[in-house]
Amino acid sequence: MPVISKKGQLMPQSPIRKLAPYAEKAHKQGKTVYHLNIGQPDIKTPQIALDAVKVHSLDILSYTRSEGSEEYRDKIAAYYQKKDIKVTHDDIIVTTGGSEALLFAFGSVMDIDDEIIIPEPFYANYNGFSTASGVNIVPVISKIEDNFALPPISEFEKLITPKTKAILICNPGNPTGYLYSKEEIKQLAALVKKHDLFLIADEVYREFAYDGHIHYSIMQEEGLEEHAIMIDSVSKRYSMCGARIGCLVSRNKSVIQTALKFAQARLSPPTFAQIASEAALETPQSYFDNVIEEYVDRRNTLISELEKIEGVKVAKPNGAFYCVVELPIKNSDDFAQWLLEHFDINGETVMVAPAAGFYSTPGVGLNQIRIAYVLKKESLITAVHILKEALKIYKD
Amino acid sequence: MPVISKKGQLMPQSPIRKLAPYAEKAHKQGKTVYHLNIGQPDIKTPQIALDAVKVHSLDILSYTRSEGSEEYRDKIAAYYQKKDIKVTHDDIIVTTGGSEALLFAFGSVMDIDDEIIIPEPFYANYNGFSTASGVNIVPVISKIEDNFALPPISEFEKLITPKTKAILICNPGNPTGYLYSKEEIKQLAALVKKHDLFLIADEVYREFAYDGHIHYSIMQEEGLEEHAIMIDSVSKRYSMCGARIGCLVSRNKSVIQTALKFAQARLSPPTFAQIASEAALETPQSYFDNVIEEYVDRRNTLISELEKIEGVKVAKPNGAFYCVVELPIKNSDDFAQWLLEHFDINGETVMVAPAAGFYSTPGVGLNQIRIAYVLKKESLITAVHILKEALKIYKD
Ligand SMILES: Cc1ncc(COP(=O)(O)O)c(C=O)c1O
Ligand SMILES: Cc1ncc(COP(=O)(O)O)c(C=O)c1O
Repeated sequence: MPVISKKGQLMPQSPIRKLAPYAEKAHKQGKTVYHLNIGQPDIKTPQIALDAVKVHSLDILSYTRSEGSEEYRDKIAAYYQKKDIKVTHDDIIVTTGGSEALLFAFGSVMDIDDEIIIPEPFYANYNGFSTASGVNIVPVISKIEDNFALPPISEFEKLITPKTKAILICNPGNPTGYLYSKEEIKQLAALVKKHDLFLIADEVYREFAYDGHIHYSIMQEEGLEEHAIMIDSVSKRYSMCGARIGCLVSRNKSVIQTALKFAQARLSPPTFAQIASEAALETPQSYFDNVIEEYVDRRNTLISELEKIEGVKVAKPNGAFYCVVELPIKNSDDFAQWLLEHFDINGETVMVAPAAGFYSTPGVGLNQIRIAYVLKKESLITAVHILKEALKIYKD
Repeated sequence: MPVISKKGQLMPQSPIRKLAPYAEKAHKQGKTVYHLNIGQPDIKTPQIALDAVKVHSLDILSYTRSEGSEEYRDKIAAYYQKKDIKVTHDDIIVTTGGSEALLFAFGSVMDIDDEIIIPEPFYANYNGFSTASGVNIVPVISKIEDNFALPPISEFEKLITPKTKAILICNPGNPTGYLYSKEEIKQLAALVKKHDLFLIADEVYREFAYDGHIHYSIMQEEGLEEHAIMIDSVSKRYSMCGARIGCLVSRNKSVIQTALKFAQARLSPPTFAQIASEAALETPQSYFDNVIEEYVDRRNTLISELEKIEGVKVAKPNGAFYCVVELPIKNSDDFAQWLLEHFDINGETVMVAPAAGFYSTPGVGLNQIRIAYVLKKESLITAVHILKEALKIYKD
């Protein structure tokens, strides 16, 4: 019998997927499950984007250009210019989600066995993309005590080897919710310039910055033109995850030319989704203001409810819509499963994302979970109440 | 300055892309260019698919399941069952085009430096997918004299090494238009069983079989359950290339489980496109009958016009919508460029795809071109006339 590749065997399964059968069982038992585990916002997609595909006038649903239409890329460039990021359509390749932009970036700057340094905890699918690309993630630990701020640059420097090709940050962070300061970005910029590395910034949550903080993009940093590769996506910005449209942005011409070859091999990003995404760019600022008000309100509620639980430590996020919480338990994988299998209050329980999957250093984060505040405030209050009661009786 | 990966440098540029600047120049000079070079059908997309997205009732454009919705996969399975392919939704992973299905298949069955044997000439982007996956294509030459029939099995066997993991065929073929017979598929089946290899069949043109020939899928072949991986797509079947929906089909559970991990890492295939593709499954048979009638008519015209040109050899295709043509020239790259730059009849010229890009053996196919008959009959007649006149005066 023919056998699967080692790469295929090594491909990680997401920590949430492992829990899926238990969630399904809970649903079947008639339990209500509050999903604190997902990254799919419950926010309405801008009507203008939803309507755009309803009035399409296509006769033939054709391939578009591999890099996305010039018109759409022009509009994306205009969006960035408003954010003080000076790029033109030539610096942008439209991709099938931020996911594909990450794959193109990995393929363009790293070979088999090359290394990429990533502050952990990090978005779990970076593991999958690095396995698929045959490269190795070298984690540098950020701490819940520091709200997951950037680890000292000296910690990065210790890890740099001849195989190191890039540093990847997620800003603001999934799962941390941490928004890097301008000062932190400048430190990273100096580091990658010193060591001739690429700096890849996953900015898919760029629009979600709270408490008056302003997102500072690596693309705003002068002198970083040859080093900076930004990953972006419409998924979270317009709550249109199902579109599958993102982009890779860089002023490094070789990066764009190379990523374009990956893009050409797969022909083009989805056409309907580009129509919706182009229309989404007309979304009024009031939409974002409302969304951010909603998230801030939820976050404040969530954090204050969590802080009432004895023995719980919580990083206060100022971006994205996640937070990492440390619980007075030993193993959150077991705890998450137990919540679904053996616990409920009046038929209601919660599903959380065990944080170990967001770390690549074994044994770290075992007592942490990630909570996504993509539920209404009332649901968050109930969910945290359930968590609190569960912790009272849970035994490791 | 940080440098691009070797992989990125090795990523091939498609042969057609190289000609794009010359085509653009010709357009700018006001020339009419007959595009015999493209794989984008001019056939109308079924109205039912185009309309489906117009009446969507989504509020939030969410991620779907990574493997595609069970409902859609059920319907795909039903489509295959009608074609005598016995699969269920469990054997199907919905992908972002056949392109992504190929990438998932490569990643699931091959590691870095593994080998895949492919009859050449083959679809040029197999080169890109293999470079991206770090695997090596080992070509086995098929001949224009044989209409590009399957090379003798002994030729495959000569090439099998411990690194060989799979054989990939395209059926019917791009660029050859060749439709493999049941007997040829059985020979390949015996071979992969004997050597414990995977057999990957790219069947994205499965619906385009002419002259009463019936497409025989590797999925119909008994005893091949653990070996067979089929790649499919809605792109050509429903002339909806811009949807970006395909699928990977296999009854080998490990293959499906592994491909699913790749699928989960990139989250989900595009939602609008799945809506359109699900609706497309309701396309009446009359649509296909008309399309096939149209292609057969075009092919017959094209071939008979080509055969009138002195010194031209043409493989008679019985599937897909391409044919490979041998010209009395030395280098079709130069010829194709010359056609765009220096030739026209009353301001009209043609763009062809040089065939060298479809071969991986250096120096083979240099005097061949691929013609796609995705233009109306009248245009094909004019285009071949232009080609004929051009050949009279072209000097290598
Ligand atoms: C940090 C981060 N990057 C990238 C992605 C990929 O998103 P998409 O492919 O939908 O753009 C996600 C999705 O959750 C994410 O959280
Ligand atoms: C032989 C073959 N396979 C796969 C593809 C990929 O098509 P898609 O990704 O649009 O399904 C094509 C497109 O031209 C093709 O010709």
